[in-house]
Amino acid sequence: MIGRAEAERVARAALTCVAEPGDEVMGALLRACSPAEIVAALTEGRAPVAAAAPGGGDDGWTGVPRLDRALRRWAARLGDVPPEHTLDAWRTGGIRLVIPGDPEWPSQLDVLGDARPWGLWVRGNADLRYACLRSVSVVGTRAATAYGAHVCTELAMSLAERGWTVVSGGAYGIDGSAHRGALTGGGTTVAVLACGVDCAYPPGHCQLFREIREHGATVSEWPPGRMPTRHGFLVRNRVIAALSRGTVVVEAAVRSGALNTARHARDQGRPLMAVPGPVTSTQSAGCHEVIRDWGAICVTGAQHVIELLSLDEPAEHRPGPVLPRDLLDPVTSRILDAVPSRAGWGPARIAAAAGVDFDTALSCLGALAAAGFVERCDRGWRLQRPPKGPVVGAEPIKT
Amino acid sequence: MIGRAEAERVARAALTCVAEPGDEVMGALLRACSPAEIVAALTEGRAPVAAAAPGGGDDGWTGVPRLDRALRRWAARLGDVPPEHTLDAWRTGGIRLVIPGDPEWPSQLDVLGDARPWGLWVRGNADLRYACLRSVSVVGTRAATAYGAHVCTELAMSLAERGWTVVSGGAYGIDGSAHRGALTGGGTTVAVLACGVDCAYPPGHCQLFREIREHGATVSEWPPGRMPTRHGFLVRNRVIAALSRGTVVVEAAVRSGALNTARHARDQGRPLMAVPGPVTSTQSAGCHEVIRDWGAICVTGAQHVIELLSLDEPAEHRPGPVLPRDLLDPVTSRILDAVPSRAGWGPARIAAAAGVDFDTALSCLGALAAAGFVERCDRGWRLQRPPKGPVVGAEPIKT
Repeated sequence: MIGRAEAERVARAALTCVAEPGDEVMGALLRACSPAEIVAALTEGRAPVAAAAPGGGDDGWTGVPRLDRALRRWAARLGDVPPEHTLDAWRTGGIRLVIPGDPEWPSQLDVLGDARPWGLWVRGNADLRYACLRSVSVVGTRAATAYGAHVCTELAMSLAERGWTVVSGGAYGIDGSAHRGALTGGGTTVAVLACGVDCAYPPGHCQLFREIREHGATVSEWPPGRMPTRHGFLVRNRVIAALSRGTVVVEAAVRSGALNTARHARDQGRPLMAVPGPVTSTQSAGCHEVIRDWGAICVTGAQHVIELLSLDEPAEHRPGPVLPRDLLDPVTSRILDAVPSRAGWGPARIAAAAGVDFDTALSCLGALAAAGFVERCDRGWRLQRPPKGPVVGAEPIKT
Repeated sequence: MIGRAEAERVARAALTCVAEPGDEVMGALLRACSPAEIVAALTEGRAPVAAAAPGGGDDGWTGVPRLDRALRRWAARLGDVPPEHTLDAWRTGGIRLVIPGDPEWPSQLDVLGDARPWGLWVRGNADLRYACLRSVSVVGTRAATAYGAHVCTELAMSLAERGWTVVSGGAYGIDGSAHRGALTGGGTTVAVLACGVDCAYPPGHCQLFREIREHGATVSEWPPGRMPTRHGFLVRNRVIAALSRGTVVVEAAVRSGALNTARHARDQGRPLMAVPGPVTSTQSAGCHEVIRDWGAICVTGAQHVIELLSLDEPAEHRPGPVLPRDLLDPVTSRILDAVPSRAGWGPARIAAAAGVDFDTALSCLGALAAAGFVERCDRGWRLQRPPKGPVVGAEPIKT
């Protein structure tokens, strides 16, 4: 018998296998039914009870053609759902499914509404929520010029040096320069992939993905094993835009896929920025277009990006905890008790004080930081201090 | 005995010799007194009657310290005013003084208020008002890069090919490329100088200025013979901005004088545009600054410039005549009578019909066009057709 939370995780894992990411029919269904109820219904070849229209079809479906087509399509894919031992093997291999309500869930994805991911497959050492608290998406063309690659690397490096996480799509060209620049700057970087996090696509980025996992994370809405599709890249772009505080287009032709990400950022109401380049370069034409026609801000360096993204973050604002303390599991709770309130302690000292091993301490500290209980300081970790003055824009508690 | 209009021209010529362009004390004085009265008063060592404060100084001045200092300064420079035969020699040499109320006066300069030029010394074949009806100021650094020079030449050439006059400052670098591009495009170009229109400054542009005069005009607020001063360039920049419908900065470092022209355009409420460039180039940093911080529009080619400047010019709008017909001199009036109403005639045919020589016809046609009576068409000149529908923004009659 597994707990309710674990049942939801298993069900959402199944949803990532049967429903296309961003499918608005599934998004709408999830407002009415739990993931477990949806999976159970699909397995039994019927509609979820809450979704069945009064006087619906006699065959167990709803009688609503669009919904029934979707339900049948998902049911037909149930064979793709991995057995439990595969899920266990993925977990052992360092691949976790982060779902809404988890301390690691980046709640800024809620901006996507019904197109919010069913869950995110995550692989890497970073806590996804914590990593993305101060993050910038840096995107652009695969066919980067020497100019674009140079400018992108410098930008990402400077952002990383100032503590900003760089989010990108792991592709060749600008994406690659963004991740590499962030790594060079000693920072955290997150690659949002359109394939499973165990796949190296593009293949030339196999080693880069390894380094990203070391100092950040690779993330995907698709389960392990999936290869990318053309449409998948476009669907994925909304997550790149939604994960971060704002998006910078470094180099893009006017029909580049990077402008699709830019459009998502704009439509989500997130700050959109672009780096100008020579007007003689077609790979900068898309940047100039978004500056001229979409109202994107012209940025030429990390300082401009940080200035813009810090506008809605008063210096004294620290969000309070997003989880009630009594919801923490016993180990995490013990670690929280061991964290000092003023001078920082290193994770080894905290691990010793809490009586847990180093890796557990490190991973729990990340989760505690993401949940707003602790913060990093010069000498390690300490309790997050309450904000001075009124808290502006404190995030609501999500469980 | 000379007429009132000619007396005003002689007096304004004197003002250009004694008062610094843009001097707001002189500008304010000209609201109260005629130029001739000011010159007469200076010559007699007293304040103009209308300016004298009640109970003013016993010494003939006003008793207002700032005004008296200015009057004494101007009086001390009366020796710089050329004798009448010099004025005649300039005129014979092709240098004319265009003053407010002339058909050739570009009334858009009225935006300058008290800093409006006392008059403009003009040298060249173009009618200044007509040339500037559809004009763009293209400015930038003297230290242009190969990129900037290339982009500027292309931009000015395209603008010229589409019938737009390019206004610039005649300097080395971007200014020179702007003028040369316009000439290459077969268009009209106007150089606003900070020295007399008979001086070649910078000296390397001696031949360029000859070509500009051939296909456009050089213009100055300073009388012939004056060499430029450092301060004069900055004062001159307000005229570059005010003459045209909008200003484009092609390449400029953050402390470039071109940004001074840009500031004038912005303060005058004229559209301000900038061409982006590599963020690695200090000569594009000023362009990016005005795009990011001043709200300048990012433009990458002539089409963008023309689209923006045509926004406030409905396709059907043609301004009506700005001078009553009975104010035209007899020769001009005869030429106007000879202009056909529909199919265009060439200037030679119009000259023959009006019984005047070719050069006179050509010059009068320019003036008539500037005043809104005639227009160029494919096959020559014809009467300007009345606008269809309501006239938006027709310019008021200024005489």
